Amino acid sequence: MTNVLAIGGYSDSDHAALEREFSPIFVGNSEDVAKLPDDQRQQITALGFMGHHPFGGPEMDLLPNLGVIANYGVGYDAIDVAAANARGIKVTNTPDVLNDDVADLAVALLIAQGREMLAASDWVTSGNWGEKGSFRLARKISGGRAGIVGLGRIGRVIAKRLAAFDMEIHYTSRSEKETPGWTYHADPVSLAKTVDYLIVALVGGPETENFVSKEVIAALGPTGILVNISRGSTVDEGALLDALESGAIAGAGLDVFLNEPKIDPRFLKLDNVVLQPHQGSATLETRQAMGQLQRDNISAFLAGNALLTPVN
Amino acid sequence: MTNVLAIGGYSDSDHAALEREFSPIFVGNSEDVAKLPDDQRQQITALGFMGHHPFGGPEMDLLPNLGVIANYGVGYDAIDVAAANARGIKVTNTPDVLNDDVADLAVALLIAQGREMLAASDWVTSGNWGEKGSFRLARKISGGRAGIVGLGRIGRVIAKRLAAFDMEIHYTSRSEKETPGWTYHADPVSLAKTVDYLIVALVGGPETENFVSKEVIAALGPTGILVNISRGSTVDEGALLDALESGAIAGAGLDVFLNEPKIDPRFLKLDNVVLQPHQGSATLETRQAMGQLQRDNISAFLAGNALLTPVN
Repeated sequence: MTNVLAIGGYSDSDHAALEREFSPIFVGNSEDVAKLPDDQRQQITALGFMGHHPFGGPEMDLLPNLGVIANYGVGYDAIDVAAANARGIKVTNTPDVLNDDVADLAVALLIAQGREMLAASDWVTSGNWGEKGSFRLARKISGGRAGIVGLGRIGRVIAKRLAAFDMEIHYTSRSEKETPGWTYHADPVSLAKTVDYLIVALVGGPETENFVSKEVIAALGPTGILVNISRGSTVDEGALLDALESGAIAGAGLDVFLNEPKIDPRFLKLDNVVLQPHQGSATLETRQAMGQLQRDNISAFLAGNALLTPVN
Repeated sequence: MTNVLAIGGYSDSDHAALEREFSPIFVGNSEDVAKLPDDQRQQITALGFMGHHPFGGPEMDLLPNLGVIANYGVGYDAIDVAAANARGIKVTNTPDVLNDDVADLAVALLIAQGREMLAASDWVTSGNWGEKGSFRLARKISGGRAGIVGLGRIGRVIAKRLAAFDMEIHYTSRSEKETPGWTYHADPVSLAKTVDYLIVALVGGPETENFVSKEVIAALGPTGILVNISRGSTVDEGALLDALESGAIAGAGLDVFLNEPKIDPRFLKLDNVVLQPHQGSATLETRQAMGQLQRDNISAFLAGNALLTPVN
C-alpha cells in the first residue's frame, strides 16, 4: 500500500511522473482527504500538495502519520504552517525555478497596460486601422520610476529586468536590503507616492493581507499603474476596483485575484486593465521544473535525506 | 507668404506647434503637392514631412526652391534621398528620441507572443477561467537566445533589454560591432539557425527589402518567434505568412506590415501572432519629442544654422 498522497489537478506529465515514482493515491483537493478509507489515511507519510484550497490542522489530523507536505509552487499560503509545526510536519515548496517566468510576465503586464497593447491589437484585428486610421497615442513606460513591493527572490528579478528599461528602482520590504543603488522605503505609502509603477511581489498569507491598502493605492495616483503577480490577497481588491473605475489610478496589470478563478465581474468591465489567469509560472519548462522539485522533496523525505527546499 | 510646407496627418499638438512657429501650408500627403498653386510652390524652402507615401524626384521638382526635408520619424524610406542629393536638398530625421519606446514594444511583443497573453486575457474576460479552469501552458521566454537583425540605435537598446532577461545575444549587421559579449553572425541564415527569437530592427528602404528572406524564416524553425518593429518591407511577408500558417515557425509579434494600414487579411486569421498598428513610437512623450526635433531642424535650416540630425 502506498504511503504517498497527491492532492491537486496535476498536468498529464506530472501525474505520470508521480505515478511512476510513488504510485500515490490521487485526490482532487483538500476536501477529498476525509473521503479516503481509514487504513489508507493511516499509511500516508508524504503528501504532494497542489492548489489553493486550504490545508490546515483538521486535514492534517486525518493523516496521523504525515511527515512532509511537499507544495507545488513557491507560495504555500494554502498550507497552515503553524499547524504543521505543531504536529511535527515538514513543509517544502518550489522556490526559484519560477522566478524568471513570473518576472517576465510582470514586465510584459506593465508594458502591455501602459502601451495599451490589447486595445491596439483589437484596432488591427477589427479592421479599424485600415478604415479609421491610426490608433490613439499611449504612454512611455521605460525611464519611469518603478516601486517593488516585496524584494524577495521574485521581486529582485523583476527589479533587475526593469533596471534595463532605464528605470529608477524603489522598493519596500520587511527590512532594507543590499541592492545596487535601489532606494528603500520603509513605508509603502511613501513608495507609492514616489513611483509611476507599483509591482507587487509579496508572499501571500495573513501577514500580507491588504498590504497594498486603500491608502497605498490612493498614493499611487491618477498616472500610476499597479501590477500584481503575487496573490490577490495582498491588495485591497475593493479599493483597487474603485480606483480603476474612478480613474484614481491609471491602470493595472493583474495575474492574481481574490476568489480565483471566479473573479469579481467588475474587473471584466474595465478598459484600463490587462488580466491574466494566474499564469505567472505557467510555462511547460517551469512547471516541469516545479514538479521535479516537488517530487525530489518527497523522495528525499522517504529516503531519510535532507529536504531540498524546506519552509519550516 | 509662408516658405514652409507641412505634409502629413499631424496630431493636434504638433499641428498647433507647426502653426505657431512657421504658419505653414498644410497638406495631407505627397500627392497633394501638385494641387498647390504655382506661386505657393515656388516659395517653399522647407518641408516638414510625415507619412509613408513616397516623396521622390517628381514631387521635389514641384518645389524648385526646396532646401530641406525634415522627416518626422527615424525611418525616412518614403523619401528618395538620392533624388534629394541630386537636387542639393538636405534631409533630416528624428533619431534616438524613439529608441526606448520601440525597444519596449519589441520586448513586450516577444513575451506577449510566447506567453500567449492575448489568448490568456480572452480566457479571463470570456469567463472561461471560472467555467473551464486553467489556461493551457505557454513557453518560457527569458533565458533563450535572441538574434537582433540590424544592430543600429534601436537594435542596441533592444539587445540591452533582452540581456536583462538572461538571454544570449546574437546579431547580424553590415559589420561586426563593439559589443559586450554579443555574438556576430555575418550570415542572417546562420543567425536564425542559432537563435530562438529573431528581432528585426533594420532600417527600411530598397537595400533591406526582404532581408529576412524565406531562407532566414525557414532557418528560424518551428520553435522560433519572429518580432518585427522595423518596416514591413524588411521581411518577405508572403514567406512569413506561409510559415505562420504552416507552423514552420512558432509565432510572430508584428508592429509593421506591407501596405499599412490595409494589411494582408491572412494575418487576421492567425492565432500565433500579436499584431500592433505600427505604434513603436506612438506615445505622447515620444511623439512630442519627435515633433520638437522635426521643428528644430526646420528652424535651424531657416536660420542658416547647422542641421541637428541630418541624413545626407
